[in-house]
Amino acid sequence: MSFGAFLMPAKSEEELPRDWDVIIVGGGPGGLTAGIYLARYGLRTLVIEKDTPGGKVSINPVVENYPGFTYITGEELSKIFHEHASKAGVKILFPEEVVRLDLKGDWKKVHTRSGKEFSARALIIATGAEDRRLEVPGEMEFYGKGVSYCAVCDGPLFKGKKIVVVGGGNTAAVSTLYLAKLASKVILVHRRDKLRAEQALVDQVMVLPNVEFRWKSVVTEIVGDERVRGVRIRNLESGEEELVEAEGVFIFVGVIPQSHIAKQAGVKTDEKGFILVDYWQRTNCFAVYAVGDVTGEPMQIAKAVGDGVKAATDIHDRIFGGAYGEPKASWHPTPCIPED
Amino acid sequence: MSFGAFLMPAKSEEELPRDWDVIIVGGGPGGLTAGIYLARYGLRTLVIEKDTPGGKVSINPVVENYPGFTYITGEELSKIFHEHASKAGVKILFPEEVVRLDLKGDWKKVHTRSGKEFSARALIIATGAEDRRLEVPGEMEFYGKGVSYCAVCDGPLFKGKKIVVVGGGNTAAVSTLYLAKLASKVILVHRRDKLRAEQALVDQVMVLPNVEFRWKSVVTEIVGDERVRGVRIRNLESGEEELVEAEGVFIFVGVIPQSHIAKQAGVKTDEKGFILVDYWQRTNCFAVYAVGDVTGEPMQIAKAVGDGVKAATDIHDRIFGGAYGEPKASWHPTPCIPED
Repeated sequence: MSFGAFLMPAKSEEELPRDWDVIIVGGGPGGLTAGIYLARYGLRTLVIEKDTPGGKVSINPVVENYPGFTYITGEELSKIFHEHASKAGVKILFPEEVVRLDLKGDWKKVHTRSGKEFSARALIIATGAEDRRLEVPGEMEFYGKGVSYCAVCDGPLFKGKKIVVVGGGNTAAVSTLYLAKLASKVILVHRRDKLRAEQALVDQVMVLPNVEFRWKSVVTEIVGDERVRGVRIRNLESGEEELVEAEGVFIFVGVIPQSHIAKQAGVKTDEKGFILVDYWQRTNCFAVYAVGDVTGEPMQIAKAVGDGVKAATDIHDRIFGGAYGEPKASWHPTPCIPED
Repeated sequence: MSFGAFLMPAKSEEELPRDWDVIIVGGGPGGLTAGIYLARYGLRTLVIEKDTPGGKVSINPVVENYPGFTYITGEELSKIFHEHASKAGVKILFPEEVVRLDLKGDWKKVHTRSGKEFSARALIIATGAEDRRLEVPGEMEFYGKGVSYCAVCDGPLFKGKKIVVVGGGNTAAVSTLYLAKLASKVILVHRRDKLRAEQALVDQVMVLPNVEFRWKSVVTEIVGDERVRGVRIRNLESGEEELVEAEGVFIFVGVIPQSHIAKQAGVKTDEKGFILVDYWQRTNCFAVYAVGDVTGEPMQIAKAVGDGVKAATDIHDRIFGGAYGEPKASWHPTPCIPED
């Protein structure tokens, strides 16, 4: 299979229309699925992705739980999603970042970092969630010099070396499986007394011969010279600290929803910043939807994909009159009031 | 790829345990996805499917809108889902029909047509929706003698023959695309003045050279001798009737949710019979969930798959304590009162 034709970023010279039926901000599984459905419904659909289509999936070492693919790299699955959306007729603009939204009028306006402006009758926010920082001394200082949030991106740099992994969820577990094949030794630091990942992953991690665990422990500092040289670990029970030698630190301690531009434009979120949506993925702003990780748990590819189908179907039926006639449910949006 | 090892029905001699962590009634995309997640969470999971794993997907001529597969037959996709669930460790019992549920106690009890009884701490209803009948004279008389609800199953019997298709939604459209390649001529009868299928499908159907349309029309009778010989069609505007010669009638006029056994056991549905669920796919009965088409629109593979992830995640976190600790939302089930 060749993806070449579909993986070209939209060239800056290329003149994209300004007005669309639907604009989707973010090209992960939720955004691309909505795009596939909208394009098949005959609606002119633009996806704007700030990095690579596929979103965070593309940096997943391995995906085993998206139904239909028993084992696939995140990079491959991203390419397949990208190809599917392109074939369906979705226009994907990347890399291009949306920096401001104006959601009050009938035309939803989208402003990008490079100064472009687009508008559409309906908008889907599919901006995902980004990695949470540990917020300890040395973390930012050594970012890219041994500190990483992406096993696939940076793992190969630590072949035969000793590293520390921080976290105990699915991402920490799947990344440890990947990193343990490369590193000579992995020290896994987790604040609980067991991993909270899927049992299928836990079973695999716990038998890795070159992984040592520091349970009920946290990282308090990352130290080094030009590069990371070690990690200070504190046991939460005993209060004891140890300085572990390591050349790399991989941090997987949760995510932060990327909802700030939506919030600024008047979209409501919960106290953690996840966008509030109803069954059809509608936000409080009329004709504005949100799908995928930016709407909260479960942050899974298959869930994002389901969100995308719902949002696209409702946009077709409700915003564009659809072929089905009547809207399926009432929608009484609260006022969409931008923040100052 | 070989699916042989995974496609063996559970043999009657095989002794399945009586007690499980979770039982899933129905092996379509929603049920199998929940199974994949539950098995990966380390929970002992039984799927009971009355026909073939994959459910109604397996009789779809072509699937183009499940993200990751730009073009695949329903049969192939079903096999891939089936293989995925089996590899993840899900036990799939088929063909075996669940005829009665008892959902009141801590152990949810499942009785099958062949007299087996199973129980589990949590139950997922994934029974889907079945084809609606036209309810006109001749329909049941000629069922299997020219009347069909499945293009893939019966289409090849009508090679070079003249047939009638009834309906205007996605299933009617995709089936017409398939049948028009086999039949010499297709008369499509629809009560509206246009198809209500996805535009991508409409575009393909409208240019088929051997398809004729009867808009704003309904079938009033199916006539024949040993087999179907013709179809009586009434124009809803003019009231005029015509008798069209045809050797086959394919009916795609919507679905009926398969919620009766759940309803009998106390699960609440809406007025159309779709099971009422919350964000996590919980029904009104504690530890009883529902996913996929039996919960209503949009009846799409990708939506069912998303449902499955939510139900499985909540069962793991909420019913089995999970590794995450706290439940994510409150759940105040109404009493689960069986019908008499």
